[in-house]
Amino acid sequence: MPVTVVGSIAFDAIKTPFGERERILGGAATHFSLAASFFTDVRVVGPVGDDFGEEEYAVLHGRGVNTEDIEHVEGGKTFFWAGEYEYDFNTAKTLDTQLNVFGDFQPKLSEGSTSAELLFLANIQPDLQREVREQCTGAQIAGLDSMNYWIQSARDSLVRTIGMVDILFLNDAELRMLTEEPNLVRATRKVMDMGPRVIVAKQGEYGAALFTGDGFFALPAFPLETVVDPTGAGDSFAGGFLGYLDSAGRSLDDGTLRRAMTYGSTLASFWVEEFGSERGQRLTREEIDERYEKFRSITTIESVPTA
Amino acid sequence: MPVTVVGSIAFDAIKTPFGERERILGGAATHFSLAASFFTDVRVVGPVGDDFGEEEYAVLHGRGVNTEDIEHVEGGKTFFWAGEYEYDFNTAKTLDTQLNVFGDFQPKLSEGSTSAELLFLANIQPDLQREVREQCTGAQIAGLDSMNYWIQSARDSLVRTIGMVDILFLNDAELRMLTEEPNLVRATRKVMDMGPRVIVAKQGEYGAALFTGDGFFALPAFPLETVVDPTGAGDSFAGGFLGYLDSAGRSLDDGTLRRAMTYGSTLASFWVEEFGSERGQRLTREEIDERYEKFRSITTIESVPTA
Repeated sequence: MPVTVVGSIAFDAIKTPFGERERILGGAATHFSLAASFFTDVRVVGPVGDDFGEEEYAVLHGRGVNTEDIEHVEGGKTFFWAGEYEYDFNTAKTLDTQLNVFGDFQPKLSEGSTSAELLFLANIQPDLQREVREQCTGAQIAGLDSMNYWIQSARDSLVRTIGMVDILFLNDAELRMLTEEPNLVRATRKVMDMGPRVIVAKQGEYGAALFTGDGFFALPAFPLETVVDPTGAGDSFAGGFLGYLDSAGRSLDDGTLRRAMTYGSTLASFWVEEFGSERGQRLTREEIDERYEKFRSITTIESVPTA
Repeated sequence: MPVTVVGSIAFDAIKTPFGERERILGGAATHFSLAASFFTDVRVVGPVGDDFGEEEYAVLHGRGVNTEDIEHVEGGKTFFWAGEYEYDFNTAKTLDTQLNVFGDFQPKLSEGSTSAELLFLANIQPDLQREVREQCTGAQIAGLDSMNYWIQSARDSLVRTIGMVDILFLNDAELRMLTEEPNLVRATRKVMDMGPRVIVAKQGEYGAALFTGDGFFALPAFPLETVVDPTGAGDSFAGGFLGYLDSAGRSLDDGTLRRAMTYGSTLASFWVEEFGSERGQRLTREEIDERYEKFRSITTIESVPTA
């Protein structure tokens, strides 16, 4: 304890077939922090502008997130993203991206953040992720997220960054793109050769798969009748995963990782039920543990009765 | 006992990134029969031409499949399909389809076949499927497969046929297309309102999900480093599923259905390792049961240790 997360803090405008929001609190670091806060202490690192005020801080503080390393850039504006989803929730159509204060972001972490035992590098430019990893000398375990954009535009830097982390979160298409290997099992093996001991292949509505040295585990997504907005699903997954992992002593044994997968999927399943982090903001640990048990029951296979 | 399957018996020409076969035994009923034969007695019903000879019968007889109701059409040619897969194994590109003897197929089932307790209607024209369902008065349980082509070209007939079966096998895109409902949970509920008590949503490389009245179960695909040819995956899945179900007394309780799902996925996982049914032809029950246990181990979630 605690967990440090570095990444975007944002305002989002989101439109889906189920409604829209013109301006809600978003950003990878925000979603991660709120999700992880159900399991452990969280410190969030990232820049915001003058438009980021009491109301936004209150959401984070309401979940006990430490915001000491949120950097307020005087005269700046907070990162803004506008996106739209159609019925295929797997891909967002970006309508507008305004980097604003994020454009000149140089992470400066306080000692409280650099000494955290667990670090999550949310999806930002891989050079910045590496810089943060180097600063965080206390981190026994580092997790990383990235995206197709960096695979295409900054591959070498991303590969170096991947070499410095323990747990990589990517979706399966990105793992294939990164390795130019269509078979997912082979692709993850190639990525493990780059450094990470654990690969989480996110598969959207199909759930997620976990690859370790010689281990494999897969979990479906929780069956939901209503998916309103997938924004933040990946980051809330990572938050539930790494938050639980930290609370369980950061052991990377099989049983702990499987439970982390299940908590990650549980958090993501709540996240997509409403816009942005709205569901997460009024979630309880009891609801989480109840859904965790449902996950167990919908995936249990009995052995074959002997005749 | 036994299980009757009605559907195509074919010769296939298949090309994938891993090689090709110019002419191998194929067809939905063939793949189903071979897979189901590991669990129960199977009777296969369908037409063949003069080109279907000793060698092909030997494959079926080698697995104990009863071929009494294979209808030999004098002077005819067996159904032929040529297809190609690229690295995305989810969709085949059809290069050639020659219906041949299948064009005039009118199912005539012997009493041995109509009295079978379990019936599988493989993917053929839904009017024919209904005719077979009506003939098979002994069938306590009927399973059905279909495809996007019939949803588009014969929707009303297909819906009537769906109303006469107990277990429906479709891929998730087809379930959405059939119901015009993008959410899979809602789509399966709509399909259950048409009649079936059990819906199996096939999801290709992501596995399969099982929907019953108020139950849900999902299983990933077995992680394979080498997928050579997906032809027959769906039919070998149905064969493993229904073959096991028959051997287990055709109970549709949750535990039995989950085991059926696991056996279905197990058979499909072997099937795709080689071209057509080549792997299935030299498969053993021991290998099947071993992989079944691996499936259990890669999906098991432990409960959270209490503090």
